[in-house]
Amino acid sequence: MKEVIFLIQCDDSKGLVAGITSFFYEKGFNILDCQQHTDLNTAKYFMRIVLDISNLRTSQDNFEQEFANFAEKHSLEWSAHYSDYIPKVALLVSTTSHCLYDILLKHHEGDLKCEIPLIISNHPDLEYVADQFNIPFYCEPVKKGEKEKQEAVVVGLLKKYNIDLTVLARYMQILTPEFLAEFANPIINIHHAFLPAFQGANPYKRAYERGVKIIGATAHYVTAELDEGPIIEQGVERVSHKCGPGDFKRIGRDIESVVLSKAVKAHLDHQIIVTGNRTIVFSN
Amino acid sequence: MKEVIFLIQCDDSKGLVAGITSFFYEKGFNILDCQQHTDLNTAKYFMRIVLDISNLRTSQDNFEQEFANFAEKHSLEWSAHYSDYIPKVALLVSTTSHCLYDILLKHHEGDLKCEIPLIISNHPDLEYVADQFNIPFYCEPVKKGEKEKQEAVVVGLLKKYNIDLTVLARYMQILTPEFLAEFANPIINIHHAFLPAFQGANPYKRAYERGVKIIGATAHYVTAELDEGPIIEQGVERVSHKCGPGDFKRIGRDIESVVLSKAVKAHLDHQIIVTGNRTIVFSN
Amino acid sequence: MKEVIFLIQCDDSKGLVAGITSFFYEKGFNILDCQQHTDLNTAKYFMRIVLDISNLRTSQDNFEQEFANFAEKHSLEWSAHYSDYIPKVALLVSTTSHCLYDILLKHHEGDLKCEIPLIISNHPDLEYVADQFNIPFYCEPVKKGEKEKQEAVVVGLLKKYNIDLTVLARYMQILTPEFLAEFANPIINIHHAFLPAFQGANPYKRAYERGVKIIGATAHYVTAELDEGPIIEQGVERVSHKCGPGDFKRIGRDIESVVLSKAVKAHLDHQIIVTGNRTIVFSN
Amino acid sequence: MKEVIFLIQCDDSKGLVAGITSFFYEKGFNILDCQQHTDLNTAKYFMRIVLDISNLRTSQDNFEQEFANFAEKHSLEWSAHYSDYIPKVALLVSTTSHCLYDILLKHHEGDLKCEIPLIISNHPDLEYVADQFNIPFYCEPVKKGEKEKQEAVVVGLLKKYNIDLTVLARYMQILTPEFLAEFANPIINIHHAFLPAFQGANPYKRAYERGVKIIGATAHYVTAELDEGPIIEQGVERVSHKCGPGDFKRIGRDIESVVLSKAVKAHLDHQIIVTGNRTIVFSN
Repeated sequence: MKEVIFLIQCDDSKGLVAGITSFFYEKGFNILDCQQHTDLNTAKYFMRIVLDISNLRTSQDNFEQEFANFAEKHSLEWSAHYSDYIPKVALLVSTTSHCLYDILLKHHEGDLKCEIPLIISNHPDLEYVADQFNIPFYCEPVKKGEKEKQEAVVVGLLKKYNIDLTVLARYMQILTPEFLAEFANPIINIHHAFLPAFQGANPYKRAYERGVKIIGATAHYVTAELDEGPIIEQGVERVSHKCGPGDFKRIGRDIESVVLSKAVKAHLDHQIIVTGNRTIVFSN
Repeated sequence: MKEVIFLIQCDDSKGLVAGITSFFYEKGFNILDCQQHTDLNTAKYFMRIVLDISNLRTSQDNFEQEFANFAEKHSLEWSAHYSDYIPKVALLVSTTSHCLYDILLKHHEGDLKCEIPLIISNHPDLEYVADQFNIPFYCEPVKKGEKEKQEAVVVGLLKKYNIDLTVLARYMQILTPEFLAEFANPIINIHHAFLPAFQGANPYKRAYERGVKIIGATAHYVTAELDEGPIIEQGVERVSHKCGPGDFKRIGRDIESVVLSKAVKAHLDHQIIVTGNRTIVFSN
Repeated sequence: MKEVIFLIQCDDSKGLVAGITSFFYEKGFNILDCQQHTDLNTAKYFMRIVLDISNLRTSQDNFEQEFANFAEKHSLEWSAHYSDYIPKVALLVSTTSHCLYDILLKHHEGDLKCEIPLIISNHPDLEYVADQFNIPFYCEPVKKGEKEKQEAVVVGLLKKYNIDLTVLARYMQILTPEFLAEFANPIINIHHAFLPAFQGANPYKRAYERGVKIIGATAHYVTAELDEGPIIEQGVERVSHKCGPGDFKRIGRDIESVVLSKAVKAHLDHQIIVTGNRTIVFSN
Repeated sequence: MKEVIFLIQCDDSKGLVAGITSFFYEKGFNILDCQQHTDLNTAKYFMRIVLDISNLRTSQDNFEQEFANFAEKHSLEWSAHYSDYIPKVALLVSTTSHCLYDILLKHHEGDLKCEIPLIISNHPDLEYVADQFNIPFYCEPVKKGEKEKQEAVVVGLLKKYNIDLTVLARYMQILTPEFLAEFANPIINIHHAFLPAFQGANPYKRAYERGVKIIGATAHYVTAELDEGPIIEQGVERVSHKCGPGDFKRIGRDIESVVLSKAVKAHLDHQIIVTGNRTIVFSN
């Protein structure tokens, strides 16, 4: 069975569900799933619709063109994601392995529908993990005063491998606006704090010093503002006065792994629509 | 604005979303919300659709008749719930007040769209709570060998007050099949355990003896099988070896209150469809 | 049985447990419970010890004097809390009732070992709740430019009633440093956010705008720095893109109630030691 | 620094803390940590005490003999665990890798203080994981009618490697009473359900059919009664009507990994005392 997922957003108006679903129904496609959301604060409408297009009799391009015409008439913003296209994901890491392993294992279990053609790091430490999973590993250290140069190499690799999604799996480098301009596809980061608390460096240490009773982690899309991008998923765990900063780190590792993998899965399952600085995450 | 919510279930087939949404759209109603679910295991389809029917030009009866014709053609099971009908809820309690208070307070806050015309108890203890909220209180004790008689009085009250939903807010009596046959509307119970663990009496004591590390509570629709009805909502909390049975009870009170109120709210917001012994709970 | 709880803190050194427990054992008191914590970062030692002093043959004053001598020798900071003294708690509220009710109900259930001799509010709205529970209610509005005057009246009431603990159960006023200087006993506040995120006003609105996926509440001791005092307890709940600011508020109410009551209970059970801006909360 | 942890249990009586702590203090050992618990239901007393024995001037045997004399006088049951002894842990697995990986990774991170000298499986599937971590892998299939024989081989391996703790990391075989009699050291199992719900086979399928809204996993010591041993740790996660049995399995994997690793860590940190069918788990 071949499927397509449309992610749609537009200003709310009468007849949108009926209109869109009828468009597809009249073309003979079965609607396998349809979720929607209306944001009453902004009067915006969001839809995720899954179609069985096994019996598509025209080309994919023609099909998209027909929908594009329909969409223009109704001022819909949209994207289409076909089940036979496997997205390519690059993993960027530094020295800690837990998020990297978690993604590789879930990929291995079949939870994450993607290819992982390369792992890039600014440190050599995790090459052995890449080796265990037979994935090419590129070590691109950031030398003093040469960050620009390193980023150019990294972006070059992402482009060479036609990367659709970059995942910062505890990559301890801030990406420059130039990087983000150059690599325009989505980037997901895991921040080891319950954002917006403890943005920036050393969140566990600062959480410890503030004496919080719950710690967390946040997966978000990367934007030019550090730790300010649209939040996809968050997770938390209780801590007690017995936990020192080291325990925060240890407990946090499990939270980070689970939260990042959930966010990456939601993205790869095309369940996320970004609107302003917020995300609609349709659940499956 | 007048709204109606349709809850629909049927065997899955092609064109259901488009068909149903078009039916309403062609009648001129704006679809305010539409959620659906397909159960792949049973090939059943479920929909919750919210319509603005402010501009309904025919009678409600005519409108329902037209939909009934449409529904029959497509073998839909359905119910319609109008925003201008305020359901009547009866609360049945025994001697503990926490669930009772939680429902009364949330009703007072406007979270629960219903009337609460009476509180019934098999004990006199909680009359003062009913008095605080100016709600008629009926004390109907269960005398030895006269349970049948007591139940007849209770059912009589539920019918007299045209009760749509009965909530067992820690009512420590098992309802007989005769009761359930006589009062055919939904009944929601809170069981103070994480079902299906610890069905029946003294769940906290048994949970303590088993040495569990997490306790819970379960809100479910009442069926003839004790604690076997469709689960609506569950909640849990961690406990430690320091907690004795009394602490389980104390900690459990908060879980019970929150879980029961969530279940009652979901029911009153018409978010629940029962299928077999399972519930679809559309979130809002 | 008469009990006393000692809360002790000092610089860590060899022989502290043995020394302190032997002091009490030699006086013939059974040690009912003894919890301790060593903060490795600050090399500080903390102990909570519960003694059965039913067979105290001297006066309480003499007993304390003896311990004071011992404590001075070992540079212990300490406080003693006797089971036959029932602390007096004042509740300060504004217009929302959920935290107020939760404390009153838990007090009624016997969970909170205290007297609640008065409720003070800057609004008249919740007088009916005070009436339901037969507690004197003082309405002290904050008139423009007369905050100082109002605070003087409130402090006067707290002193008149010999209040040991003041609980801000959603009291929507910031206490001035003068107030805190004048009323030196502990004050617990509930902030409707997961501190340190969203300090200050309108936390739910700002949480919604930031697009968080989990909301929370924080109970903390009040200090002169707004929302910066030592955190006692935090709680969280998941939210989705379907939740608007109103849902955050509604869902938040349950978190706030539970978190505040837990913090007040921990304080009244003498389980909390404050150190710097952090709390040691011994669990029971 | 050399440390020893004593785990002690006995009938509760006056002077226990003071007596035990003084015993060690008088020998010149600093008490690094001391936690205790009194079970009021059974009048049993439990202590975990951590000593710095760097300055032990006698042999370990002599030291234990002295404590044994003291313990006998006070009818203490006890065990002593020295920081310079690294326990040996055997991992038993079948075909799913998530729990295996999680333990190996946490071991690699230094969270689990143990050696893992071998992995045993009744299937060849996971040999590659053992290879990745350079751990000997023994494949011992269970042939029809030859379970006894296979168990003898497995027990032989556990004895040959002087295994202190066996971890069933999703080992899909029930150990016979003979096995348990032969290998007398502790065995920890992960059951993929929130015990005591869904004991035995296919818990996720049965949880799905029962329509639960929260799923869980339970780590427990293995006893002769299937899934009835003392519970060490439990974890849970919410599920919705959108989750089929496959989603339960997928979501469950994260819970199982975290719960099993926490239980193994607590055991290796000597934080657990078993009493009857319950566990005291001192937190650190």
